[in-house]
Amino acid sequence: MEKIKVGVAGYGTIGSRLADGVALQDDMELVGIVGHSPSLAIRALAENDMIGVNGVEYKLYLVDMDLKPRFDALGIPVEGSFEELCEKVDVMLDASPGGTGAANKAIYERLGVKAIFQGGEKNSVADVFFHGYANYDLGLGKQFLKLTSCNTTGLIRAVDCLDRKFGIEKVAITIIRRVADPGDYHRGLTNALQMEKAPSHQAVDLMTIMPHIAATGILVHTPVTHGHIITVLATAKDGRKITREEAIEAFRAHPRIRTVTIDEGFKGNASFFKYARDLGNRRADMYEIGLWEDSVVESGNDIMFAINIPQESVTIPETIDGVRAVMQMQTTSAEATAATNKNLKIGRFKK
Amino acid sequence: MEKIKVGVAGYGTIGSRLADGVALQDDMELVGIVGHSPSLAIRALAENDMIGVNGVEYKLYLVDMDLKPRFDALGIPVEGSFEELCEKVDVMLDASPGGTGAANKAIYERLGVKAIFQGGEKNSVADVFFHGYANYDLGLGKQFLKLTSCNTTGLIRAVDCLDRKFGIEKVAITIIRRVADPGDYHRGLTNALQMEKAPSHQAVDLMTIMPHIAATGILVHTPVTHGHIITVLATAKDGRKITREEAIEAFRAHPRIRTVTIDEGFKGNASFFKYARDLGNRRADMYEIGLWEDSVVESGNDIMFAINIPQESVTIPETIDGVRAVMQMQTTSAEATAATNKNLKIGRFKK
Amino acid sequence: MEKIKVGVAGYGTIGSRLADGVALQDDMELVGIVGHSPSLAIRALAENDMIGVNGVEYKLYLVDMDLKPRFDALGIPVEGSFEELCEKVDVMLDASPGGTGAANKAIYERLGVKAIFQGGEKNSVADVFFHGYANYDLGLGKQFLKLTSCNTTGLIRAVDCLDRKFGIEKVAITIIRRVADPGDYHRGLTNALQMEKAPSHQAVDLMTIMPHIAATGILVHTPVTHGHIITVLATAKDGRKITREEAIEAFRAHPRIRTVTIDEGFKGNASFFKYARDLGNRRADMYEIGLWEDSVVESGNDIMFAINIPQESVTIPETIDGVRAVMQMQTTSAEATAATNKNLKIGRFKK
Amino acid sequence: MEKIKVGVAGYGTIGSRLADGVALQDDMELVGIVGHSPSLAIRALAENDMIGVNGVEYKLYLVDMDLKPRFDALGIPVEGSFEELCEKVDVMLDASPGGTGAANKAIYERLGVKAIFQGGEKNSVADVFFHGYANYDLGLGKQFLKLTSCNTTGLIRAVDCLDRKFGIEKVAITIIRRVADPGDYHRGLTNALQMEKAPSHQAVDLMTIMPHIAATGILVHTPVTHGHIITVLATAKDGRKITREEAIEAFRAHPRIRTVTIDEGFKGNASFFKYARDLGNRRADMYEIGLWEDSVVESGNDIMFAINIPQESVTIPETIDGVRAVMQMQTTSAEATAATNKNLKIGRFKK
Repeated sequence: MEKIKVGVAGYGTIGSRLADGVALQDDMELVGIVGHSPSLAIRALAENDMIGVNGVEYKLYLVDMDLKPRFDALGIPVEGSFEELCEKVDVMLDASPGGTGAANKAIYERLGVKAIFQGGEKNSVADVFFHGYANYDLGLGKQFLKLTSCNTTGLIRAVDCLDRKFGIEKVAITIIRRVADPGDYHRGLTNALQMEKAPSHQAVDLMTIMPHIAATGILVHTPVTHGHIITVLATAKDGRKITREEAIEAFRAHPRIRTVTIDEGFKGNASFFKYARDLGNRRADMYEIGLWEDSVVESGNDIMFAINIPQESVTIPETIDGVRAVMQMQTTSAEATAATNKNLKIGRFKK
Repeated sequence: MEKIKVGVAGYGTIGSRLADGVALQDDMELVGIVGHSPSLAIRALAENDMIGVNGVEYKLYLVDMDLKPRFDALGIPVEGSFEELCEKVDVMLDASPGGTGAANKAIYERLGVKAIFQGGEKNSVADVFFHGYANYDLGLGKQFLKLTSCNTTGLIRAVDCLDRKFGIEKVAITIIRRVADPGDYHRGLTNALQMEKAPSHQAVDLMTIMPHIAATGILVHTPVTHGHIITVLATAKDGRKITREEAIEAFRAHPRIRTVTIDEGFKGNASFFKYARDLGNRRADMYEIGLWEDSVVESGNDIMFAINIPQESVTIPETIDGVRAVMQMQTTSAEATAATNKNLKIGRFKK
Repeated sequence: MEKIKVGVAGYGTIGSRLADGVALQDDMELVGIVGHSPSLAIRALAENDMIGVNGVEYKLYLVDMDLKPRFDALGIPVEGSFEELCEKVDVMLDASPGGTGAANKAIYERLGVKAIFQGGEKNSVADVFFHGYANYDLGLGKQFLKLTSCNTTGLIRAVDCLDRKFGIEKVAITIIRRVADPGDYHRGLTNALQMEKAPSHQAVDLMTIMPHIAATGILVHTPVTHGHIITVLATAKDGRKITREEAIEAFRAHPRIRTVTIDEGFKGNASFFKYARDLGNRRADMYEIGLWEDSVVESGNDIMFAINIPQESVTIPETIDGVRAVMQMQTTSAEATAATNKNLKIGRFKK
Repeated sequence: MEKIKVGVAGYGTIGSRLADGVALQDDMELVGIVGHSPSLAIRALAENDMIGVNGVEYKLYLVDMDLKPRFDALGIPVEGSFEELCEKVDVMLDASPGGTGAANKAIYERLGVKAIFQGGEKNSVADVFFHGYANYDLGLGKQFLKLTSCNTTGLIRAVDCLDRKFGIEKVAITIIRRVADPGDYHRGLTNALQMEKAPSHQAVDLMTIMPHIAATGILVHTPVTHGHIITVLATAKDGRKITREEAIEAFRAHPRIRTVTIDEGFKGNASFFKYARDLGNRRADMYEIGLWEDSVVESGNDIMFAINIPQESVTIPETIDGVRAVMQMQTTSAEATAATNKNLKIGRFKK
């Protein structure tokens, strides 16, 4: 079977990880990546002779060919322009800075290439606001998808997991948001917790993807860089009680949820990052969300729990699912997510 | 009327503020404070010639008179021993380090003096686990009270406020906890959110004080020093819906709750600290909890909101209420809290 | 004697403290302050019925009278416009946001009022780049001064102290800079130390004020809010050795330098902030720089030491000195700084 | 040639990286690692079926065989006891918790095995306090070495680099120390810079290794996790001036120093960590220290500059050098460090 040809626009925090994710798929080919200036990420790639994960060469295309002399001077090979890459691929994964994606859409439309945008764009950029588990069917064969943002992607994994098993009608969330990524200097926060007006956009987004659920929530920014933590209070339909044991059993069975305990050593969000480093994961990334079993408590009939969202890498699997949907590589969410999971070695640790 | 004679054991973060709180009451006399070593707080007092708030002299008594030569060498006047102070007072406010209070209790029992302990001690140290609004009656005339901890004190204020108006049967909380006080070096956290096993003790403590409410919750430590933030989801009895407007109206009427908005400039926990500095409040303290009106959202019939807890000073008013209870200065919570509020100028800002 | 009439433009971090500083002088009158929008600082002032420090009313003038209705709606009294205030004063202390001061200068020139700008403006805005100890004479009778920035102000205090005693010819500094003030949300840094290109502007500025000294240095931003720390390596002229004891003796004698030790409890920058709170200082401020005696070490003939700069308040005394210079209230630095110090109770703690 | 057999005691932050470092050497064999409890690092290894870097199996030996049932229950294979490992190796790299190494020494002496201790132990534990560049000769054939600590190791690299070229007689340093590692919860610091008494132990240690240099310095703890920053002021012998260009040229030629600029994107300590992630380095580690070319400034005849120390991994190369010394695998520092560098791919990036 011919591999699906994929390009990645933007080689920042998300784009570089999307490139890795594509390079790991046995049924996709990473045709190239699009960069703008010689950023640290691109300099690191060049130091590795443009070889990324899995021995794959990441060929570099430029947004602005006028800047090619800067790359030449640094000895960084340039393969061609953004549009030249678009002409070679079936799907572009657009992880360019927020707002740019909407502008790129005109190019994709003109060249007739499919595209999947990240959470920073407006919903209107795409035909479908997409999540690999919760609404895979809606993405089948579409030209344009927009992925949920990192928090919403992880949150929906957990809520969808309960919803399939028990039927959920209401959730109330508290998002304890990391404020910057490791290596960021432009958007930190120092010794302050910052509020956003409620309801948080993640609750609103969840309702867009899962319209049968009423969701609301409060978001608080915190001065850390490794992983958001979300507490979720979920109410089942028809007054059904969800017990602690039932919830934990459901979470344990989900391939993209890593259930852990404080006693094992997972004391907080930084433990997942440390654990990924100890695993030898590339870029110290983790694709699974974490779920603390010792956070799961009953509140009357409702169930409450806390999850950890690895903000840099959590959307990669669901974006790869999106490629499968728009290219109709698999016709069901079950088949598509299974294929993605196998290639990303997700769920390998499940007993 | 003769003033009630009060002593304060411990002159750390809480003890120094209790001394200020007593010195501001028109019906209490601060007889003395108990110190251990020449800490920064005591050195600062000495730099002010032992004059604290309101022109009151804070006479220093020592836990260990063998250390008196150290104070003499520094020119810090010592009035006598811990036990000598106990013999002069009606009530001791015990803010000594956690665990010490239980040992001090033997002294209080022997000398027949009443005492109010802080949240660091075990409940068993006292006759009643106390909150000035939620169970004032139980404290009347007792010898030993234990105050709720800072988070629980603030949380109960808000839940009690709704309970009186609407009748609350269930709450689920997420505590976003500051991990150290300004000036702490021994218990920080750096770039990590740390989990505690659920349910949090604050939820359990709330049920002890308000046994008609079912409470649970999750606590996450965050690396900041200015004020905890708690999100609360409250369910009224009998399926009664609480609207956003009703909740806000109730909170606005409570003297110990300061309702604010992000647009006014209260962007997060550090804003309350800054505002207290701008008010010229002693030690940059605030006695009220903060409540963001733009955090209040409905979740079906339930109401969700976020509060800010100024951890260093929030328990001072309720401790002063405790003095009123054990000395039977007022017979109802309404009268007692009104007297405390007047002397601490709490609620002055209410329109 | 008639008091000197002073206005303050800007009521942010520096402006509000300049207003306090003026209100504390027995030979100056705070005629008014200039605000822009109803910030938290102005709301706090209004909550206090516009009464600031020392029982002084802080009359509010507006940059933009078109915004008066917003203040009216909040019940905040407005006295008049910026220009109306300018017409009533001898000197304006301009602490408006960086860059605005240069625009205001045109107004001051037109109205013939003297002005003192803060460190955020360009040097060219003023006749003299000023420090109360190091070049008071140059400011005498001038129309426009610009104060050194917070770090430079504190650094020069310490270097000038040694220079007067031993004659300094060279300094090399490392500035460990706090990145935000308490209450800031817009300019934080999270889990990162950020470099600036060397030499730091503070070293360059020191050479402008003290042209006989060769200075260079490196600045690193750190994610904290309470006080910069600067390490200084100073070389005396002509190969003269400065001993540890000589240096400490000189620092101890300086009224605007607070010499402390780690063993006393001054473990770091946050200790000075805590100590100011314990002193009951308004806004938890401290006018003195801190100097750790246990940081003073000899490096051959050179002397090395570490100082703490309270960034929010350190420039207030030197700015008040500036008023004395431009108004020729005192003719020497010794007399002027003594008057400022007495009114601000600086040096009171010296044995 | 037979490979040198190496064991690693302790599998924490340093021990796990020493194991990786040994597994990468073409002339060494990692016989086994010693663990205590099933920590996150060991759980991660088990999730990878005990395969570490380079396809090497990391066989696990236990400090306390009584704990073997805990490992059995988790399905983690145990190969034997600590002493059994000691009997199989030529050299033990001891990275057990500070203080334990001294106790282990008795075992090493009894079994006649060589050992290299890390910086947490006292100097007296070893025959030589060792650095691969600065005093390799002293380590030749010895039984026990102790490595310099992370800051000292990196600092000596830079000072030794200048010393070989220009002859250094004096250095004054300011250490801006990270306070915790990523994943630490037990030793953080929140919103504070903490002082240590001067001179810092790193300056004292430098003089032990390089006795011809007079060193002093001040250390300040900062609340970050990614890399210390040290500013160094170095004075050459005999009044020789070191120019900025000469210094940069020397640094550029050193394989274990990575010279960078802010404009390239290396804005601070977190940039090196991000860059290592982008390189795909295992555990996001970097063996080189960073040196900002735009921090290098002249101070009279002296040269000042700032370096970045990756605290988790910086001592690995010098420890591997130590194996070469004690086993006399190479007779000169030049040969030994070249062999270590080749296997760790250090200096690969040099033009």
